[in-house]
Amino acid sequence: MAGKPSNVTGSLITIGDEILLGDIQNGNARHIAAELRARGFLLDRMITVGDIEDDIIENLGQCLEGSRFVIVTGGLGPTDDDRTCAAVSRAMKRPLICNRDYARWLRDRLAKWGVEWSREVEKMAELPEGAVKLGLDSAGFSLVHNDIPCYFLPGVPEEVKLLLAKEVIPDLEARFPNRRTYIKHIVRIQGMLEAQINERLRSLEPVEGVEIGYYPQGRENWVSIFVAAPNEVQCRALMKSAKDKIVALIGARHIIGHNDDCLEKVIGRLLRERSWRLVIAESCTGGLLSSKITAIPGASDYLDRGFITYSNRAKSELLGVSEQLLCVHGAVSEQVARAMAQGAARNAGAEVSIAITGVAGPAGGSAEKPVGTVFIACVTPAGEKVQKYSFGTGTREQIQESSAQAALAMLWELLSGGEPPLPCD
Amino acid sequence: MAGKPSNVTGSLITIGDEILLGDIQNGNARHIAAELRARGFLLDRMITVGDIEDDIIENLGQCLEGSRFVIVTGGLGPTDDDRTCAAVSRAMKRPLICNRDYARWLRDRLAKWGVEWSREVEKMAELPEGAVKLGLDSAGFSLVHNDIPCYFLPGVPEEVKLLLAKEVIPDLEARFPNRRTYIKHIVRIQGMLEAQINERLRSLEPVEGVEIGYYPQGRENWVSIFVAAPNEVQCRALMKSAKDKIVALIGARHIIGHNDDCLEKVIGRLLRERSWRLVIAESCTGGLLSSKITAIPGASDYLDRGFITYSNRAKSELLGVSEQLLCVHGAVSEQVARAMAQGAARNAGAEVSIAITGVAGPAGGSAEKPVGTVFIACVTPAGEKVQKYSFGTGTREQIQESSAQAALAMLWELLSGGEPPLPCD
Repeated sequence: MAGKPSNVTGSLITIGDEILLGDIQNGNARHIAAELRARGFLLDRMITVGDIEDDIIENLGQCLEGSRFVIVTGGLGPTDDDRTCAAVSRAMKRPLICNRDYARWLRDRLAKWGVEWSREVEKMAELPEGAVKLGLDSAGFSLVHNDIPCYFLPGVPEEVKLLLAKEVIPDLEARFPNRRTYIKHIVRIQGMLEAQINERLRSLEPVEGVEIGYYPQGRENWVSIFVAAPNEVQCRALMKSAKDKIVALIGARHIIGHNDDCLEKVIGRLLRERSWRLVIAESCTGGLLSSKITAIPGASDYLDRGFITYSNRAKSELLGVSEQLLCVHGAVSEQVARAMAQGAARNAGAEVSIAITGVAGPAGGSAEKPVGTVFIACVTPAGEKVQKYSFGTGTREQIQESSAQAALAMLWELLSGGEPPLPCD
Repeated sequence: MAGKPSNVTGSLITIGDEILLGDIQNGNARHIAAELRARGFLLDRMITVGDIEDDIIENLGQCLEGSRFVIVTGGLGPTDDDRTCAAVSRAMKRPLICNRDYARWLRDRLAKWGVEWSREVEKMAELPEGAVKLGLDSAGFSLVHNDIPCYFLPGVPEEVKLLLAKEVIPDLEARFPNRRTYIKHIVRIQGMLEAQINERLRSLEPVEGVEIGYYPQGRENWVSIFVAAPNEVQCRALMKSAKDKIVALIGARHIIGHNDDCLEKVIGRLLRERSWRLVIAESCTGGLLSSKITAIPGASDYLDRGFITYSNRAKSELLGVSEQLLCVHGAVSEQVARAMAQGAARNAGAEVSIAITGVAGPAGGSAEKPVGTVFIACVTPAGEKVQKYSFGTGTREQIQESSAQAALAMLWELLSGGEPPLPCD
């Protein structure tokens, strides 16, 4: 009989100067972590080192001490800066020997490309003793060292994805059949500070196998529930219980949704339920809010048009904002935001309208209306709301993003009867 | 006299279960690495561990052995899963004591938010002995341990960016004045394959201290030049020589620009030079192209309006696209794309107009016009161009992004007389 299911945790080493130099995002690490977790394997560390043999050896040695499996990506190519095989050979005291499967694959590949066999290429076919080639068309290999399965993958993201799915995960599943199941759930919260959420959830009794985490995510706060149990049924039961308690303690009016329920998705759902149409009028955000709303599949059910009215003339011509209003209050004002929202609603015949006008900077600020001053107006069948925001400390990009997020939060609040978003500074 | 300039290499530890679980991309790591390098500091390892005190302690200990500086992000919040301070205290044998600057800052912040002082909040003000608060408005701190400067930053990306620029890098520069200089330069290329670029650059002789790299970046290809030298003057001379050779070999009409010269920025420059105005009409991209154009500071110099015409009615009412055209050819057609661009130009009185119409999916495709079918039309004083694209293999998000990028590439080509973008499939 198998014993109690246990955590199976491993290490990931990504090799590549381009990551250490900040040239590229370490997308492989995130992909590998997420795929492993979905199958019940966890990473307890991710390490990135450069193409330096000693660094690879040192870190591989440390990982072999505390891990039940090790995955390494990168450094398997034919050039001089590919040091993984040499490092593995030294770290594990396994001589490099020509791998016949690998050599055959290389020969075929080179023939296809019309490249001649050379000493450099031959070097690629020399793998540490005990290595088994991974996949039909890849430079990856695996070997078991001190009972620890180790997988060496190339750095190319497409190859990593393929080998992980077809080779690494099936092999891990066969080697560790008796492992715990994990589920993750995110509760997305609007209108509460992280400390307030923590305070409300203080009464939660700790439950074996259930971990609660907190992440601020821009204007939202996320509570994550991570459940581990010997099997799926227990896992789901633990999750349901934890989730229900958290939702009750937080209060429904603060909860935007769950997991990938972003504001734009939830807003779409609310509009569709009410058969209401939305129109958007943007000045300083220049299309950013519209692009978020239309990123959701099926947005044409509730959005038929949007206006980017960057100039005063465009605000007058397209939205009917009076020149007098623009002249007296300025384009960045409560009055113009409201007139933009009203004009857009009229033009589109929409029940719901949202308008943003502000100073995104870096130029265009004044003493009275510094960079970051933004007015957002929302019209719904239930009434109107206009609010002033000050996003003054951000860059242009941040001010635009904060403005679009604030508009989404206002829409959500008015459509759902949810909690008003937190004031911002 | 100072000795020969040397490499100053350090370690980065990012703390966060959400990274190990694959929930979020480790964006902080990339940002920190790139910013450090730009100032002559390199990272020789990046480690990600979870919110587990022992893991933090073990890795901090290892980093303190081989690094000239250490940066740690994450785990500084008020919640129970924030373990960094406790770990630092144990790893460095520095008791946690209430930091008065920090406590005052916290009190002010809470008062502003109307939140009461509590035991959890008080915990946040307890820092390892010797810690100095970083910045006016952040949970970060620094301390020097065994002569190694260590910086502890919160995990929130905006705070990391701010503290790195205003506190960490100036402090490192003061501590390590005598270091090697690095410069990185990117040449951005349109209309050539990576293999073609490689072929053209084959005649470049290797130069000590100069490294050339290649990265495909969506529809562009980038050639990176990385130069290391004992001082800035030598660095710049090496860079100029390498850059000039590469530009000559590639040919100016393929080169969009350098470094952060993205298409939208270069397009803005070209429009401004010609005193031309641009108008945008988007259907399937729903504001994405407009948001890219308006992300550039000063976009109001050449853009005064944009239209998001999602429905047929909006295309007719706002852009004057005839119902007959929509009926006969369908909204996703060469004819409608052209009519949208012409109508938008007329409406705005703009010299340059670009329109996108397509099927972003996942629904809405047909045998004749499958998901990913996109038409882009551009009108300039020199003439008109309409092109059909097929982005069929992507997700909705990818199709929208590819469409917006293709529109930018078409605008650049027509405005600059540059090389047409590569065909895409």
